[in-house]
Amino acid sequence: MKITANNPKRKSWLKTDVDSDFPIQNIPFGVFITKDDIITIGSRIGDYAIDLGALHQLGYFDGIPLTDDIFLQDNLNDFIADGRKTWRLVRNRIADIFDVKNGKLRDNAEHKDKVIFRMDEVEMLLPVSVGDYTDFYASKEHATNVGSLFRDPENALMPNWVHIPIGYHGRSSSIIPSGTPIRRPFGQTKPAEGSNTPGFGPSKLLDFELEMAFITTASNNLGERIPVEEAEEYIFGLVQFNDWSARDIQAWEYVPLGPFLGKSFASTISPWIVTLDALEPFRVDNPEQDPKPLPYLQYEGKGSFDINLQVGIQPEGEKETVVANSNFKYMYWTMAQQLAHHTVNGCPVNSGDMMGSGTISGPTKDSYGSMLELTWRGQNPLKLNDGTERKFINDNDTVVMRAYCENNEIRIGFGECTGKILPAK
Amino acid sequence: MKITANNPKRKSWLKTDVDSDFPIQNIPFGVFITKDDIITIGSRIGDYAIDLGALHQLGYFDGIPLTDDIFLQDNLNDFIADGRKTWRLVRNRIADIFDVKNGKLRDNAEHKDKVIFRMDEVEMLLPVSVGDYTDFYASKEHATNVGSLFRDPENALMPNWVHIPIGYHGRSSSIIPSGTPIRRPFGQTKPAEGSNTPGFGPSKLLDFELEMAFITTASNNLGERIPVEEAEEYIFGLVQFNDWSARDIQAWEYVPLGPFLGKSFASTISPWIVTLDALEPFRVDNPEQDPKPLPYLQYEGKGSFDINLQVGIQPEGEKETVVANSNFKYMYWTMAQQLAHHTVNGCPVNSGDMMGSGTISGPTKDSYGSMLELTWRGQNPLKLNDGTERKFINDNDTVVMRAYCENNEIRIGFGECTGKILPAK
Repeated sequence: MKITANNPKRKSWLKTDVDSDFPIQNIPFGVFITKDDIITIGSRIGDYAIDLGALHQLGYFDGIPLTDDIFLQDNLNDFIADGRKTWRLVRNRIADIFDVKNGKLRDNAEHKDKVIFRMDEVEMLLPVSVGDYTDFYASKEHATNVGSLFRDPENALMPNWVHIPIGYHGRSSSIIPSGTPIRRPFGQTKPAEGSNTPGFGPSKLLDFELEMAFITTASNNLGERIPVEEAEEYIFGLVQFNDWSARDIQAWEYVPLGPFLGKSFASTISPWIVTLDALEPFRVDNPEQDPKPLPYLQYEGKGSFDINLQVGIQPEGEKETVVANSNFKYMYWTMAQQLAHHTVNGCPVNSGDMMGSGTISGPTKDSYGSMLELTWRGQNPLKLNDGTERKFINDNDTVVMRAYCENNEIRIGFGECTGKILPAK
Repeated sequence: MKITANNPKRKSWLKTDVDSDFPIQNIPFGVFITKDDIITIGSRIGDYAIDLGALHQLGYFDGIPLTDDIFLQDNLNDFIADGRKTWRLVRNRIADIFDVKNGKLRDNAEHKDKVIFRMDEVEMLLPVSVGDYTDFYASKEHATNVGSLFRDPENALMPNWVHIPIGYHGRSSSIIPSGTPIRRPFGQTKPAEGSNTPGFGPSKLLDFELEMAFITTASNNLGERIPVEEAEEYIFGLVQFNDWSARDIQAWEYVPLGPFLGKSFASTISPWIVTLDALEPFRVDNPEQDPKPLPYLQYEGKGSFDINLQVGIQPEGEKETVVANSNFKYMYWTMAQQLAHHTVNGCPVNSGDMMGSGTISGPTKDSYGSMLELTWRGQNPLKLNDGTERKFINDNDTVVMRAYCENNEIRIGFGECTGKILPAK
């Protein structure tokens, strides 16, 4: 099926700024609540939220096989379970409805009243109910940096890393939408030199992790696997993801079973899922993989996407300072490889599951995706525009992440993924 | 509120064998499907399943604040979210309805037809929709054994282990009810001596892990914690749990982020949740904790339960051989400590979440909870009654686990937790 929604020449009758993350070529999916407490599935063009539940009730999706209440839900799981063909039909139809040449909705004031909201009139909720969340560890630069800092600089990368898209299970219950404030977590830390008693208190080394995450559709039954060449069919889209990390808690707890409370206090995602289809024009080669992966991970074609990533720190009442610029294309392992690996043992993947990329660090020091790496565990503090310094994240700092693709025709973005750290209670 | 359901003198008008796991003092909760494809929440006495949805519709729960459809669901999550006071009211009422002295249901043939099924007429489903599943690592013997086998016998127990109830996030999507067959998983394994290429194929070291797991009610909001002395109020009950493990896959993948595909191919639970209330008569002291835990983990009173545990291996067409006898009371960390630790960083716990104990190994060699430990990684194969030997689990073997409490008045059990290993496909 042709993805007509991606036509770069199309204009919308809804006003869109040239530098908007949400031109009519994006058409992301999310869930919002209106001032009247109505929860609905929606899309977005420019600074307008579009109520897909209302559009469907008014007949604008006629001819597409959808249940009546598919958009009248508080999460996208059922819609995502409908599969790629349906996603494409709906996205193409939305592009058509808002095309500058289509007067059907544009010229119907009553319908527009029911369907279109200003973004400042709605509140974004979590787009999916995440059944299982997995976090990968797929940036070679990040794995090497962390290996140097936490373990042995001489053997920073573990021998398994170049063969396995290393991942671990994360906590779904603490995934929150952008804008939700976060309490600095308490926890145990390593005993001080000469002591046998662990430390306990608010984390002193609170960090962000710059990630992207993909959302899956129902993919396989228990005992079945997804071949790597089919894996992308099961990826609905991506969100930006801040995998908040308490480094002092993590360092003490993580041996031998992996990170736990150092991560599970909060994981922030951007609220609009940008579809894999919308990102298609920005497909690029992933880094060369040497040694060659095992056959079940071998993949032909361009497996990555050119998505610019940015992190800023905004102290309370001050302007933001950009502290890192990275790119999704630096990921060593592709999403298709991650999903194929995840299911090679027969583990079932469901609609609404989320898989994080792992921290995305680039080759240069200003492209590292965490304070741990940017300040080299606090040895080289970052200077902010307001004159203060940061080794890690302070109370009342807001961390702002952005992700966007750009070519000479269009820009497709993810909006912001933000979170403010409140003092420990 | 008095837990009248626990009265050890009570008899039921439903016939119950003396060695049944399900006397009228148990009253567990589960979900079953009838031959007419009706899914309902139920309880069990002897070899009879009780349809709680039908009982409620017939007015037997009048006076207890319950929504009309609370038992007409395919999982217990909403009922569990109603909280401990409601669980106790319902459990006390069920005991009363089936008390030998109560003729209301006993003498109403029409009602009995709607409410009571023979166990062989129904199929048990998963009792809860598990939002998040955490596995702890709380048996000192097991952690010491595994540390010796996987790492360094001289420093088998990690320094953090005596301070932290070590745990990690597991995969919810592969939790299955007892009886569901399991395909031997494929996966990567460590390169052979002298090779740089990992192995790939069906796991050669397939193992069980003898565990119990507790099911929680909604406990705290993001950023809040549960004090250790309140934690048990949020535990609905326990199931038996076989945390299937592919040791060769696990050994190669687990550094540094923990077990992943070596676990996520299947996790079997017994289908009836035995309430913490029903286990109350079997409360015992947990092992002495030295060094003393940090204050947020300190707990007064008896923190454990005397639950006998057993594992058998049944080759196809042969009789079962019991290979391990252990006990839940060997756990070093209590459930209350695990839940308090889990939330100390503000991680939210929801209704239906599941927390595994970790493998429960006792002090003697016949009380180890995995083949890895029982055969000391295959060095000492176990001899089965049919004359064959096992280092790990063979294709077409069924692993049978049992858990029960017993005193001179009553026996409270969990039924069986079984799974058969099918050949890799």
